[in-house]
Amino acid sequence: MTIPDTMFTSVLTEPKSIELQRVDLPHPQRGQVLMRVTAVGVCGSDTHFYETGVIGDIVVDGPIVLGHETAGEIVAVGEGVDPARIGTQVAIEPQMPCRRCDFCKEGSYHLCTDMRFYGAYPVDGSFSEYALIDDDFAHAVPKTMTAEEAALVEPVSVAVHACRRGKVTAGSKVLITGAGPIGVLCAQVARAFGATEIVVSDPIPHRRDYAASHGASTVLDPAAGGLEKYDRHFTVYIDASANARAIQSAFPTIRPGGIAVLVGMGGQELQIPIAMIQHREIVLTGTYRYVNTWPTAIELIATGAIEVASLVTGRFGLDGVEEALMKAKTDPTAIKTMIIPSLTEYAQ
Amino acid sequence: MTIPDTMFTSVLTEPKSIELQRVDLPHPQRGQVLMRVTAVGVCGSDTHFYETGVIGDIVVDGPIVLGHETAGEIVAVGEGVDPARIGTQVAIEPQMPCRRCDFCKEGSYHLCTDMRFYGAYPVDGSFSEYALIDDDFAHAVPKTMTAEEAALVEPVSVAVHACRRGKVTAGSKVLITGAGPIGVLCAQVARAFGATEIVVSDPIPHRRDYAASHGASTVLDPAAGGLEKYDRHFTVYIDASANARAIQSAFPTIRPGGIAVLVGMGGQELQIPIAMIQHREIVLTGTYRYVNTWPTAIELIATGAIEVASLVTGRFGLDGVEEALMKAKTDPTAIKTMIIPSLTEYAQ
Amino acid sequence: MTIPDTMFTSVLTEPKSIELQRVDLPHPQRGQVLMRVTAVGVCGSDTHFYETGVIGDIVVDGPIVLGHETAGEIVAVGEGVDPARIGTQVAIEPQMPCRRCDFCKEGSYHLCTDMRFYGAYPVDGSFSEYALIDDDFAHAVPKTMTAEEAALVEPVSVAVHACRRGKVTAGSKVLITGAGPIGVLCAQVARAFGATEIVVSDPIPHRRDYAASHGASTVLDPAAGGLEKYDRHFTVYIDASANARAIQSAFPTIRPGGIAVLVGMGGQELQIPIAMIQHREIVLTGTYRYVNTWPTAIELIATGAIEVASLVTGRFGLDGVEEALMKAKTDPTAIKTMIIPSLTEYAQ
Amino acid sequence: MTIPDTMFTSVLTEPKSIELQRVDLPHPQRGQVLMRVTAVGVCGSDTHFYETGVIGDIVVDGPIVLGHETAGEIVAVGEGVDPARIGTQVAIEPQMPCRRCDFCKEGSYHLCTDMRFYGAYPVDGSFSEYALIDDDFAHAVPKTMTAEEAALVEPVSVAVHACRRGKVTAGSKVLITGAGPIGVLCAQVARAFGATEIVVSDPIPHRRDYAASHGASTVLDPAAGGLEKYDRHFTVYIDASANARAIQSAFPTIRPGGIAVLVGMGGQELQIPIAMIQHREIVLTGTYRYVNTWPTAIELIATGAIEVASLVTGRFGLDGVEEALMKAKTDPTAIKTMIIPSLTEYAQ
Repeated sequence: MTIPDTMFTSVLTEPKSIELQRVDLPHPQRGQVLMRVTAVGVCGSDTHFYETGVIGDIVVDGPIVLGHETAGEIVAVGEGVDPARIGTQVAIEPQMPCRRCDFCKEGSYHLCTDMRFYGAYPVDGSFSEYALIDDDFAHAVPKTMTAEEAALVEPVSVAVHACRRGKVTAGSKVLITGAGPIGVLCAQVARAFGATEIVVSDPIPHRRDYAASHGASTVLDPAAGGLEKYDRHFTVYIDASANARAIQSAFPTIRPGGIAVLVGMGGQELQIPIAMIQHREIVLTGTYRYVNTWPTAIELIATGAIEVASLVTGRFGLDGVEEALMKAKTDPTAIKTMIIPSLTEYAQ
Repeated sequence: MTIPDTMFTSVLTEPKSIELQRVDLPHPQRGQVLMRVTAVGVCGSDTHFYETGVIGDIVVDGPIVLGHETAGEIVAVGEGVDPARIGTQVAIEPQMPCRRCDFCKEGSYHLCTDMRFYGAYPVDGSFSEYALIDDDFAHAVPKTMTAEEAALVEPVSVAVHACRRGKVTAGSKVLITGAGPIGVLCAQVARAFGATEIVVSDPIPHRRDYAASHGASTVLDPAAGGLEKYDRHFTVYIDASANARAIQSAFPTIRPGGIAVLVGMGGQELQIPIAMIQHREIVLTGTYRYVNTWPTAIELIATGAIEVASLVTGRFGLDGVEEALMKAKTDPTAIKTMIIPSLTEYAQ
Repeated sequence: MTIPDTMFTSVLTEPKSIELQRVDLPHPQRGQVLMRVTAVGVCGSDTHFYETGVIGDIVVDGPIVLGHETAGEIVAVGEGVDPARIGTQVAIEPQMPCRRCDFCKEGSYHLCTDMRFYGAYPVDGSFSEYALIDDDFAHAVPKTMTAEEAALVEPVSVAVHACRRGKVTAGSKVLITGAGPIGVLCAQVARAFGATEIVVSDPIPHRRDYAASHGASTVLDPAAGGLEKYDRHFTVYIDASANARAIQSAFPTIRPGGIAVLVGMGGQELQIPIAMIQHREIVLTGTYRYVNTWPTAIELIATGAIEVASLVTGRFGLDGVEEALMKAKTDPTAIKTMIIPSLTEYAQ
Repeated sequence: MTIPDTMFTSVLTEPKSIELQRVDLPHPQRGQVLMRVTAVGVCGSDTHFYETGVIGDIVVDGPIVLGHETAGEIVAVGEGVDPARIGTQVAIEPQMPCRRCDFCKEGSYHLCTDMRFYGAYPVDGSFSEYALIDDDFAHAVPKTMTAEEAALVEPVSVAVHACRRGKVTAGSKVLITGAGPIGVLCAQVARAFGATEIVVSDPIPHRRDYAASHGASTVLDPAAGGLEKYDRHFTVYIDASANARAIQSAFPTIRPGGIAVLVGMGGQELQIPIAMIQHREIVLTGTYRYVNTWPTAIELIATGAIEVASLVTGRFGLDGVEEALMKAKTDPTAIKTMIIPSLTEYAQ
């Protein structure tokens, strides 16, 4: 394959404004690879960045390329990287830890004190024809895996990390609040971890329907009640709703000694039933992205332990990034929208 | 249902001699239940007891009823037990710990210093029409579960305990040596715990065939080599062969930081590659029965996460216990033989 | 030693009314021991019971003997208990779990669904000359240990449990808010677990002084600030203040991946900085009494790893129980008050 | 301080031949620091390298500078390193992992598949006036710590890693076989982790004496028996003798559920009592160097939790390296010999 000298890339120039630009192809530095981007999932944080230019502590302060749920094919390697990797299909882990701080050395590189994120200002992401990434964060996937499946390794990793932090194992009884993309992936991944009872709660019917056929053993409408009968029942509770009331109503259903994992990012403060947490010795924690999850997430997809292809409800080229970003927000039936650079129609 | 005053029971009167006797029905004491026995699996230890009168430290010193892989239906309860349990289908956990020593209190009641075993001298087992057991070791199973499946909860528990001690989880790569009943159950249970690669090694072709369709992703004939290519590969190694050479040949395939779990009881001593264990920080341990496994094992069967019914290759009444005990040993195609008391033909 | 037929006991007949009564000596049942009570610590919960007749879900509904921080000497044993235990000095673990539920079997008997508590209605405690307890909850202490030290094993157990749940280990950096008896014991016990930095925060100067000489490496007055400089510093945070503001102000000082353990019982609800908990993957949990702590707590005192004798600031006979209960509450310099039955002056 | 252009270094030119050479001062590369070496401990592996040119898989194939138990002062920094580190006293962690493989990312960088070791061919160590090391493996020590104590952080780290792998905690009962430098450090470190009973076994009287005053609660001469009375007693067993008989004789003393950690490198194979390991579910493992131990080891020394200064029994300049290497081997009273570059007498 010939690698061109220039490429198209989709640049967020200011909030609510994305331009398709032709730029020079980047060159892989020592330890990096250059990949041809084959598919990129659209994440809620991309939409949030697009609309506000801010997410958490990160403020966009110049042009930036979004996109971090990335699949690609390695087309060139930098110094120190095995050239045999060229041609490998990869799923990208969008973290750039320092590799030197205590957290990095202790196996918690996602908590790195000097982390830079791929696709978050000031590091360009992959809404582009080509993109760079550190060699070891470009995880090989089997040839049998599609580009879209490889791009979905990122949200699957969120679910794998949540299930690990919840210590989900064979026989676990799991409650999940929220049946958006992360919630339903948590249901499937929890099942893959051996959970034998997985109750998913969400107010939206078609989300419940999707969950019911993808991991959940039971689905509930919180408005209709139904959680009451699960008093002290669940060994693991995972929130993927970021909804304070959903979280609060879940606590009575947690078994003594159980674990509550809050995945969804919500507000700054939360009121919790502390006496119940103490009496039952419930463990409450949150997740921050993921760590060491790519190999497992890839295996779960590759072996068919989980099914993710059906999550994709829309596809756009690089010329459709803005539309894709808004669709993820405004179309209630959308689950996961993909940017497929090869679908781009370039203006003459 | 009317409960009779007497019952038939199959008594080991001396090594290699079992008699079908009519005896008085036992009465449940405080905290006990009386069950009608519906199915009992034959274990290699039953056969060993029958032939030699000895197993480990336990020596038969009088008449004893064997049988500890038991399913039944509760027909009467002792003082302090909820009468609503009558009619419940149960799978029996054949352990009788003291409930008071440090091990019992620390959640390791299987290591109880004052343990008595059900079906091991001097405690009668369940090759009988009726049998007693402590209420809390008679675990309820769903009505959808067959008696044979309920009896198989015991060997499934061996596998659950092995997978727990091996810390099998989503993405684990597991090697299992030995594809007898325990080995193939370990393969299925490892998959239920989320293992994504499960290699089973056994010299007997039909055992490999069964494993290949019940949990294994790959099967190997150790005589034909093939383990060599798995250098430092497996995160978990489970031995179910009790074969020293099989165990020794497995170590080079274990990933640094991996865990080796020896389930099969073998000789007193074993030569191990200690330098490799040190350099790779491999963890080596064994299993002793099981602890707190019944609820999980029942769930795995009940939800279809594992399939166990096909393990049963023969059925005998109480009048066929000796034949059943020898078949388990001498018939190479036998996997699991069941005693079904209701199949008994009583002499006139 | 001759055992009398009757004994004196201090009975809470109604809220705020305790009577010294002469009653028949109780007889040890199967599995129980009878002990001569040598020292009993007064706990805040005793005072609360005395004043209100209520604690948590437990309501006093008849005469009750309080007292659960107990030391004694075994003077008689029930059926099934080794008579050689007579004469043994013991520290009492005041829990009476069912020994049969899943929690009991899993090593979490403190979470037993059918727990009865010693010294909490309707089970009489040990503000008496003699008292009964299950054999295995009467933990032997070395002859070198004083009765008061043996009585203090109970609050030390609270601290041991808190340090275990906080995973305190060598090199841990621990923040403790609250320097009452539990807080200062947590400081000493954390040091015994290997913590190398232990900061204790309390608004009361003499409490800080005691902490500074008993485990704390640094003491702080929260009113004077000083926690700010510990941003993301502590690997473990233990609250022993039950003060919502103290707890909230502690979160920013917790290191990513750190553990927050709330020991003190406070209100029903608590506002927590959930975004911080998620971003740092902080683990938040509480403690409920203790489990399997007596052997360790006894060892820590017996080997001199912690010093507890100096906690005792007052001693009363059985005729002074009411005074002792109120002193614990009203005297700001009191740390731990003891009931010593042998100090009782009996009315003629 | 002025940094010279050249320095003296002690070079192993071939087995059993060390030359003091004047060489150019090395320059710190990106991410490295240059330190003035202040003290270096002599390790048995240094002596083994010196005598044979081989250790494990590593073969000396050219001139090499030994020495890896290193203390120094940072005198210059490479690109990307904070210049404020100049002047910092440091203890060196002599590992050079790749930072990119799965082991490095999982917090097990000591198991890195591409590890290079400091002071092991082909990487020069620190028997020199100056030496280079990666910035983040030069751990700051408090100004109150002596250079010799800082050099001893390396062997203390071996003990910290052993105690972590043995899960030593408050109340642990620990058996240690072998009272050489590592064994006695394990005793002290185990005590710092909260172990309340520490039995050390060694055939050499003066080693037992040293152990008795440095961590051990009891010392034993294996030739005189004495281990027999500890049947099923120890929760942790640490071998620091590399003696097969010592190891084998220790197993019966391990409590069910206990952990055996083999620290000392011995032969390739070891005969173990496998039935005992299975029946008691003993966990057997080894240690390979250390990982993430420097901060804890430094804290333990700095806070006085362990005392290490008395381990030093001899000091030599760079002109005495050969003598030091042999003394460590031939002088039975030597515990730890130090190379102190500033003691060197340079030939005119």
